Amino acid sequence: MTDTIISSATKEIALGFERPFVVIGERINPTGRKLLAEEMKQGDYSRVEADALAQVAAGAHVLDVNAGIPLADEPAILADCIRLIQSITDVPLCIDSSIVAALEAGLEAYQGKALLNSVTGEEERLETVLPLVKKHECAVVAISNDDSGISNDPDVRFDVAKKIVQRAADHGIPSSDVVVDPLVMPIGAVGDAGRQVMHIVRRLRDELKVNTTCGASNLSFGLPNREGLNAAFLPMAIAAGMTSAITNPLVPELITAVRGADVVMGHDAECMSWIGAYREEDTAGGKRRRGGRRRRS
Amino acid sequence: MTDTIISSATKEIALGFERPFVVIGERINPTGRKLLAEEMKQGDYSRVEADALAQVAAGAHVLDVNAGIPLADEPAILADCIRLIQSITDVPLCIDSSIVAALEAGLEAYQGKALLNSVTGEEERLETVLPLVKKHECAVVAISNDDSGISNDPDVRFDVAKKIVQRAADHGIPSSDVVVDPLVMPIGAVGDAGRQVMHIVRRLRDELKVNTTCGASNLSFGLPNREGLNAAFLPMAIAAGMTSAITNPLVPELITAVRGADVVMGHDAECMSWIGAYREEDTAGGKRRRGGRRRRS
Repeated sequence: MTDTIISSATKEIALGFERPFVVIGERINPTGRKLLAEEMKQGDYSRVEADALAQVAAGAHVLDVNAGIPLADEPAILADCIRLIQSITDVPLCIDSSIVAALEAGLEAYQGKALLNSVTGEEERLETVLPLVKKHECAVVAISNDDSGISNDPDVRFDVAKKIVQRAADHGIPSSDVVVDPLVMPIGAVGDAGRQVMHIVRRLRDELKVNTTCGASNLSFGLPNREGLNAAFLPMAIAAGMTSAITNPLVPELITAVRGADVVMGHDAECMSWIGAYREEDTAGGKRRRGGRRRRS
Repeated sequence: MTDTIISSATKEIALGFERPFVVIGERINPTGRKLLAEEMKQGDYSRVEADALAQVAAGAHVLDVNAGIPLADEPAILADCIRLIQSITDVPLCIDSSIVAALEAGLEAYQGKALLNSVTGEEERLETVLPLVKKHECAVVAISNDDSGISNDPDVRFDVAKKIVQRAADHGIPSSDVVVDPLVMPIGAVGDAGRQVMHIVRRLRDELKVNTTCGASNLSFGLPNREGLNAAFLPMAIAAGMTSAITNPLVPELITAVRGADVVMGHDAECMSWIGAYREEDTAGGKRRRGGRRRRS
C-alpha cells in the first residue's frame, strides 16, 4: 500500500488506497473570480480567510492555494496567503502555481510537508520543479501531459505519468510523494472521458502504485447540473482507485458522494463518519427514516 | 456483448454492458406498505395505478410488480395488477413473487417477454421456476443464494450464480436470459458489502458475461440518509458492470446518479439524455450555471 503523507505544522493527512478519500478544496483561486483577484492584489485577504474556514468546515481535508493574478507579485501574495491560512486552520495545503518562483516562495513560507501543484512531463518543468520538491521534501502533483500536449489516449497519459515518477526517482523523490493527475477531460466534448479516467486510474494504482488526484469538475464542463454529474463521477473514480480530488467542498452533493463512496469502499469503519454526519439530520426531519424500506428478496 | 431483451406488447428494453442502465421501479410491492396491501386485497388497484404512472414518469424503464399479501389470493391479484398496469403503461414488467403459482398466473396474464423475479440456487426453486421460464420464453432474475443460505464469500455467491446459469442452459435457457442478483448486504452490518458487490459484478460480467440487477437500497439498511448513500453506491456498481437495479425511481438523487453514471460510462450519446433532463432546470434557476467553473490546470 502506498501512503502519501502531507502535513501542516500540527496535522498529518494521508492519501492511500485503503484510506478515506481526500478532498482538496479548490476555492482559493482567483482564476475566474474577479473580485477575489482584485482584493488579493490589494493585499485584502479577508475573502481568502473566509474561503479557507468555510471549506474546512464543509469537509475539506486539504486546501489548494493559488494566487495566479495577472500583473501581480504572485510569489509574495502566495506566500502571504499561505502564512495567513496556516495561522487560522490546521489542514495541510496544496501550493498551486504555474510559476516556479511562486512555488518556491510558497514552500519557503510553508510549515509542514506541502503538496506542490504541479509538475508535468514537460522537460523544463521536470527539471525546475523536481529539484524544489527534493529540496523541501514535499509531495508533488504530477499532471500527465508533456511537451507534445495532452494525449487523447489514456495509455499515453499513463506513460507520461510513469516518466514523471521515474524522473522523480532520479531526483531522489519516492513514488509515494508523487500524486498523479490523469487529466479529466470535459465529457461533453470527449465522450469517453469518464472511461479514460477509470482506465488510467486503475493502471496507476495497479501498476505504478501511486496516489491520484484530479480536477473533478472538469468532467462536467459545459453541461447542465454540473453538481449532479460530478457527484456521480466521483464515486466511480474512487471505485477505480482515485484517492483525492481538487474540488469544491461547498457543494453538499459532492461531500455526500465522497462520504458515501468511503462507506461503500469500506474506508469508513463501522460507518461512523457517515452516521456522525447524517444522524441528526434524520432525527430532526424524520423524513428520510420513513423513506427507505428494505427490499424483500 | 450480452443483451437481455425484455418487452411489453409494444416496447423493448435491453439490459447490456454497453447500454444505459435500466431502472426497475420497486414501488408496486405491498411488503411493508399496510395501506397498499389492504387495498390490493380488496381489489382496489387505484394506488397500484398511480404508483405505476408515477414511476414511469420519474424515469423507471421497467416496473416490478409484487402482490405478496398474507392470506390473499396472490396469483389472482398479481395477474389483475399485471393486466391493469399493461393497459396504462407500455414499459415491460418484472413479475415478482416467492410463490410459483403466482409467477405462473402472472406469466399467463402478461403480454410480451417478462422478467421473472426470481429463481435462486435452491434445488426445488430451480426445478420449478426454470421450466416456467423456458415455457414462456421470458428472462429471469437469478438470486445467488442456495440451499445452504447466503454466503458471506462473494466468490461462493459467484459460484451459485454460475450453477444457476448452467442449470438454465440445461433447460434450454440462454445465459442472456439470466439476470443475476449478487445480493447486496446491509453495509452497516457487513463492512465489505460494497466491495463484495463490485467484485462479484465484475466477475459476472467478465467471466459469465451475464447482466445483473440488485435491490440497491439494501446497502443502506439501518443507516441515516439512505438516499445519499444509495446515490453514491449505484454509480460505483455501474462502473463495476451492474446493468440494472430494482430501486425507487421517485427518489430524484437516485435517478440523477443513474443518469450521471450513464454519461460517465459513455452510454448517453452526446450527453443528450442528460442535457434533455437538466437544461431547462438550469435555465430557469440560473444558479447551477454560475456554480461551476473549469479548473485551471
